[in-house]
Amino acid sequence: MTLEEYLASRRGLVDAALEQVVPSERTYPETIHRAMRHSLFAGGKRIRPILSIAASEAVGVDIAGPQVTGPLVAGAERSACALELVHTYSLIHDDLPALDNDDYRRGRPTCHKVFGDAMAILAGDALLTLAFRVLAELPDVPSERRVRMIVELASAAGSVDGMIGGQVADIEAEGKKIDTTYLDYIHRSKTGALLRASVHIGAIHGGANPEQFAALSEYGFHIGLAFQIVDDILDVVGSTESLGKTAGKDAAQQKATFPALYGLEPSRAKADEHLTKAVEALLPLGDNAARLREIAERIVNRSA
Amino acid sequence: MTLEEYLASRRGLVDAALEQVVPSERTYPETIHRAMRHSLFAGGKRIRPILSIAASEAVGVDIAGPQVTGPLVAGAERSACALELVHTYSLIHDDLPALDNDDYRRGRPTCHKVFGDAMAILAGDALLTLAFRVLAELPDVPSERRVRMIVELASAAGSVDGMIGGQVADIEAEGKKIDTTYLDYIHRSKTGALLRASVHIGAIHGGANPEQFAALSEYGFHIGLAFQIVDDILDVVGSTESLGKTAGKDAAQQKATFPALYGLEPSRAKADEHLTKAVEALLPLGDNAARLREIAERIVNRSA
Repeated sequence: MTLEEYLASRRGLVDAALEQVVPSERTYPETIHRAMRHSLFAGGKRIRPILSIAASEAVGVDIAGPQVTGPLVAGAERSACALELVHTYSLIHDDLPALDNDDYRRGRPTCHKVFGDAMAILAGDALLTLAFRVLAELPDVPSERRVRMIVELASAAGSVDGMIGGQVADIEAEGKKIDTTYLDYIHRSKTGALLRASVHIGAIHGGANPEQFAALSEYGFHIGLAFQIVDDILDVVGSTESLGKTAGKDAAQQKATFPALYGLEPSRAKADEHLTKAVEALLPLGDNAARLREIAERIVNRSA
Repeated sequence: MTLEEYLASRRGLVDAALEQVVPSERTYPETIHRAMRHSLFAGGKRIRPILSIAASEAVGVDIAGPQVTGPLVAGAERSACALELVHTYSLIHDDLPALDNDDYRRGRPTCHKVFGDAMAILAGDALLTLAFRVLAELPDVPSERRVRMIVELASAAGSVDGMIGGQVADIEAEGKKIDTTYLDYIHRSKTGALLRASVHIGAIHGGANPEQFAALSEYGFHIGLAFQIVDDILDVVGSTESLGKTAGKDAAQQKATFPALYGLEPSRAKADEHLTKAVEALLPLGDNAARLREIAERIVNRSA
């Protein structure tokens, strides 16, 4: 299977699982479920759930063939769903007029533009709530593992070193001159924590032993940072069309970004450095981590 | 111990536990933690966590003295915290200009009036996220029980028959003529579900057997409805001062309420009917449920 085929296959599994766990548009009250689905099924790349599945596959025990062709750990796409639910909730809330005030996301009007601010706030709330329910109800996964996954998700999404904390720091940095420590906190928390948690949750689902977990955690840390640096770079060099969201917003809003602080070329070098470290971290996992290595390379070399 | 003493003692335990689980105002990023605490420590009555503790006590096995004096089931105040975190998140989001647009709550300016809309949205998100983390990390509670509590909380807070669903139905009913089925859905979901989940979570924490759980669930169902009917009545007859929030808002916003549909006296009769059923449901639990009976009476006969 090529990487493209692998990504498409895992994306298909994730979409099918999301379809199952999210109430249908005919479920009462219909409006909220339409709003949740509007943002959830908007052509996202499903990077977080795919990372999670790939991490399960890198350590999973119930694998039939050679890892590189990627037979799936049972149910890994279900726990992976929780990550997409949380990611989508964060996009909906971040796009609100009170926050980033974005009209377009993934190439279509944002949730609040279609359903209004009230419904967008509630749709985000509902996706976040559902994410925890999905993990708590995972079939055929021991309660111990489910509880560990929930702790991972809640802390990655939380206010201390998680997504909300990073978002607050980002808001407070607007228009201010910030230093590298501050930018590092924003990157680690705002995007890095959930990407790392994606790897952690997959590792827990797959039953990683402590050594495997540590290797994957290190990998997750570095791809999390690489991802955000590349995101910042693309906001500078990309077009609104290829990104599916408004380009150049960071600079316009005087956001704290890597290119703003270091310049474009040093930012690219930094992303490559994290890629190297991410790939090195995978060494103890041998061939089973081949997909994770390919995904890391794709994250750093992507153009949207 | 009188009921007053009991409520004060349990409230004290809940507040102390909340103090432990919520990051301090000195935890970075400080603003978000100040915003969370602003709304959380605003003199709430802690009805949900107290109900949860009382349910634990009604079934708990590790109780030293006679149940009526209320020795505590170990750690019950910790799981009870999660309910107050979710309740407070819902108040913060409901008070936003995009939703109910309330300036005062519990007698002080609402979160967004003090910290702005962006921070209020994020503070609500953070409280919701933290609630699940608190349950997932409950010390000395088997993972099986923690997972069950998380499912209870997520479904009571969710978009189908939970708080968010009720809120959506409530918004969509504004200014419309609605029927009793519709109003019933709003009441059951918007307030009833979380009150019932409070009882469920306490029951799970205390290790209720299926018969005890069923009795408590029936009790929780009826006090949930009674609570909301009385809430609607108080909005009509109460003053802003005694309520600590703006009185008369329901009528002004043409909200769907019990008194609007049935009139005041029939509403009072309906609340009493639910009280009777709640108390009857407790019979299988005997004397151990004395506090729950008293609390139900207090909920129906309260004036604020």
